[in-house]
Amino acid sequence: MSDCIFCKIVKEEVPCSKVYEDDLVLAFLDINPVNKGHVLVISKGHYETILDIPDDVLKELILVVKKVSKAVKEGMNVRGFNVTMNNYKEAGQLVPHAHFHIIPRNGDDGLKAWPSGVYSDGEIDGVLNKIRDKLVV
Amino acid sequence: MSDCIFCKIVKEEVPCSKVYEDDLVLAFLDINPVNKGHVLVISKGHYETILDIPDDVLKELILVVKKVSKAVKEGMNVRGFNVTMNNYKEAGQLVPHAHFHIIPRNGDDGLKAWPSGVYSDGEIDGVLNKIRDKLVV
Repeated sequence: MSDCIFCKIVKEEVPCSKVYEDDLVLAFLDINPVNKGHVLVISKGHYETILDIPDDVLKELILVVKKVSKAVKEGMNVRGFNVTMNNYKEAGQLVPHAHFHIIPRNGDDGLKAWPSGVYSDGEIDGVLNKIRDKLVV
Repeated sequence: MSDCIFCKIVKEEVPCSKVYEDDLVLAFLDINPVNKGHVLVISKGHYETILDIPDDVLKELILVVKKVSKAVKEGMNVRGFNVTMNNYKEAGQLVPHAHFHIIPRNGDDGLKAWPSGVYSDGEIDGVLNKIRDKLVV
């Protein structure tokens, strides 16, 4: 898309710190990193969210995420990393071109997991049915 | 692994609220959801992190994540969702059997993205080199 910043990076109209590139996939450093060494992995084609990425492209993307994650862990000398994907702005997606984040982590970086809750008695079955009713396999 | 809670769920020694199952993959509701409808997607085989999952299994996993994400979005009637994977305990991984989280999101749930930073002048090139030096393609 002509006004998409990530499409401009793919077309080299906007520069990036390129970590990896192949025919389908591009990985580059996030210029506003959660931690130093935070990498974004995108498909070169423009798809808004994971739901829009064709299966064959998605499979290649996740293999690049795996390869780059190993390099992030070793290169940044960290003990862990998060792989995250925010889908739609309500989930914190800032650029509507689907992207995986790889965020290097150590135990002392102060980042906190989101709090988790519980289901009340019987509630979980209703939730399960809502999701299963929409599942197309 | 005999003492792994997710392996016990796979073997049906521990019950779960099952969303999806095939030969390689199992998806079930997280009993301590960040938001109601929070699903975990795992391989039936025991692999600690994304780095340990064989490529062919990882490709199948991410396709199930996509399918189940659509069902979570529609079933829970939410406008967005996060797909996340915490690798190693320093990244918040609580169960050492690799798992994707699918977390339904609306704009009003109060969950905050992690803060992001900036690189100082010239710093980003050093970080890029560290990662690229470790990348095996």
